[in-house]
Amino acid sequence: MSLLVVGSVAFDGIETPYGKRERTLGGAASYFALAASQFAPVRLVAIVGDDFTEKDAAVFRGRKIDLAGLEHAPGKTFFWAGRYSQNMNERTTLVTELNVFANFKPTLPKAYADSEFIFLGNIDPTLQRSVLGQVTRKPKVIGLDTMNYWIERTPAELRETLRQTQILMINDDETRQLTGEHNLLKAAKRIFAMGPKTLVIKRGEHGALMVHNKFFFSVPAYPLEEVHDPTGAGDSFAGGFMGYLASAGRISEDTLRRAMVYGSVLGSFTVEKFGVERLANLKRGEITARARLFSKLTSFKL
Amino acid sequence: MSLLVVGSVAFDGIETPYGKRERTLGGAASYFALAASQFAPVRLVAIVGDDFTEKDAAVFRGRKIDLAGLEHAPGKTFFWAGRYSQNMNERTTLVTELNVFANFKPTLPKAYADSEFIFLGNIDPTLQRSVLGQVTRKPKVIGLDTMNYWIERTPAELRETLRQTQILMINDDETRQLTGEHNLLKAAKRIFAMGPKTLVIKRGEHGALMVHNKFFFSVPAYPLEEVHDPTGAGDSFAGGFMGYLASAGRISEDTLRRAMVYGSVLGSFTVEKFGVERLANLKRGEITARARLFSKLTSFKL
Repeated sequence: MSLLVVGSVAFDGIETPYGKRERTLGGAASYFALAASQFAPVRLVAIVGDDFTEKDAAVFRGRKIDLAGLEHAPGKTFFWAGRYSQNMNERTTLVTELNVFANFKPTLPKAYADSEFIFLGNIDPTLQRSVLGQVTRKPKVIGLDTMNYWIERTPAELRETLRQTQILMINDDETRQLTGEHNLLKAAKRIFAMGPKTLVIKRGEHGALMVHNKFFFSVPAYPLEEVHDPTGAGDSFAGGFMGYLASAGRISEDTLRRAMVYGSVLGSFTVEKFGVERLANLKRGEITARARLFSKLTSFKL
Repeated sequence: MSLLVVGSVAFDGIETPYGKRERTLGGAASYFALAASQFAPVRLVAIVGDDFTEKDAAVFRGRKIDLAGLEHAPGKTFFWAGRYSQNMNERTTLVTELNVFANFKPTLPKAYADSEFIFLGNIDPTLQRSVLGQVTRKPKVIGLDTMNYWIERTPAELRETLRQTQILMINDDETRQLTGEHNLLKAAKRIFAMGPKTLVIKRGEHGALMVHNKFFFSVPAYPLEEVHDPTGAGDSFAGGFMGYLASAGRISEDTLRRAMVYGSVLGSFTVEKFGVERLANLKRGEITARARLFSKLTSFKL
C-alpha cells in the first residue's frame, strides 16, 4: 500500500573523520523515502528551491517514489551543514539555512488523498496536522517524528497532532522531555494516554526499543567496523520501519517486530557511506541478507 | 563444575531515590557468588575483617557457596558508600575505606586447586595472576574483570594476566581505554591479540554485546519500570554468565549465547531491590521465567 511522507528535502554539508561532502542530498524525507521505497510505493511531500535540479532529483527516479508532491518554490533549498567529532559521538551544527523550507505549507496532490499509511516527519505539528486534514479516507496507520524544538515551543499543537497518531518514533531524550518521566516504560504509559499506542524509541548505536501496550521488543544496532557518516540513520530507520509496515498492509505484533528489524537494517546501511550514497545503491538482496544477520546477532536457544 | 571467584566482599552504604542502606553486604564477589550459585557450586576467595560476623555470612549459607576461601583478618571489612542521582545515571562515591582489603593476598585452600572455571574479579592484576599460580590443573575457562585504575596504573601486569585469560568482561569505556580504539569491533580484535578470544562488553541500561572471533551476540537490558539500586548489576551479570557456563561445563557458541542471557537475567533482578536483597530471595523458577521474557523481548520471525 502507498506510504505518504511529509518532511524535509535538503542539501547537506557533512564532515566526519572519514571525509567531507560540500553539498549532498539530505533531509529527513529523502532518507525516509529512499529507505521506504525498498518495500512500498512512496509519495513524497516536501519543498525544494530552484537550485534543486533534475540531476538532484535523479536519485529518486527509477524507484517507487512519486514526486508529484515535491513542490518547487522560488529561492534556495534548505541547507544544513555539520561536523562530527573524532568518535562520531558529538555533532556540531555549522550552518542552518531554512530558505524555502521556512514557508513550507504542505499541499497534497489530489491523488495522495487516499493514502493509507502516513508518516509525519519532524516539522511544525500544525503543518503535520494540516496533512491529515487533506486526506479523505481514514488512514490505517499514522506515524510521527518530532523533536525538542516542538516539544518546548508548541506543546499544545503537538498534543493535538499526537491524538491522531498511532506510532510515535522519537529518541530517548525526546521521550523523557515529552513526558517529564525518566523511566522509559513509565514514559510510554504517559504517551499511550496522549494517543499513540506504539512508542518506538530510537537509541542510535544502542538500537531501538518498541513499547506497545501489549508487549515490548528490543533490537540492537548492527555492530559495524566503520561508520562513515551517522547522518540520516534515524530517518532511514523510520523509512525501513514504515515501508515494511505499508508492504505488509497491516499492524500486528509480528509485523511490528519485523518493522523494527527492517528499520535497523536500513539505518545500518545508511551509516556505511556519506549522505544517501549507500541507500542510493542498495539492493533488496542485501537487505534480506542483513536482516538474517540481525537474527544471528540476537537469537539464542534456552 | 565448580567455579572459583576471587574479588571483594564489602559493606556498602547506598543511597538512591528509592531509599537508603547504612551498611549492607556488598562487593563484587558477593554479587557474583550469589548470582553464580543459582547455577553451579561457587568457591569464594575474598577477605573480610573481624567486624564481619556469622550473621553477615548467613546470606551465603544454605547455597552452593564454599566459604573455606573467605579469609578473616584483624581489622575492618572494606567499606564503600555512594549516592545515585535522581535518574540513577550518575553515581557519587562518598567513602572508600579499603581496610583489610588493602593487604589482600589471595590464598587458595588446597581443595580449590582443581577449579576448572575461574573468575578473576576486579583486583590488582598481579593478585589475579597469583590465583592462577595456585591452580594445579589447567582451568577450562578463565574470565576476567578489570577497571580504568589497573588499565592506567599497571598496564604491563594487566597484559601479562590477560595472556592467560579466555573471556574478558568489561564495560565500553574500559574497552576503549584498554585498546585506544573507539570502534568496539576493532577494539575487540586488539583484545583478541592480547589473549582473550571472547570479549563481553557490559553496557548497563543498554545491555551487553559479546564479540567472539567467530560471531557476535547482543542482548538488551530487561526494561523495568522501577530500578531501586543499580549497585552490583554488572557483577551479577558476570556471576550469571560464568555460573551458567560452569553448569554447562563447556564453551560453545550456544552456551556462550545462553550465558549472555542468564547474565542479563541476573543483572535485571539485582537492580529491583537494594544491595543483594533480591539475589538473596531469588528462586530458580523466577530465573527461568525471566529468561523466557528475554526471548519474547528479542525474538522475531522474518
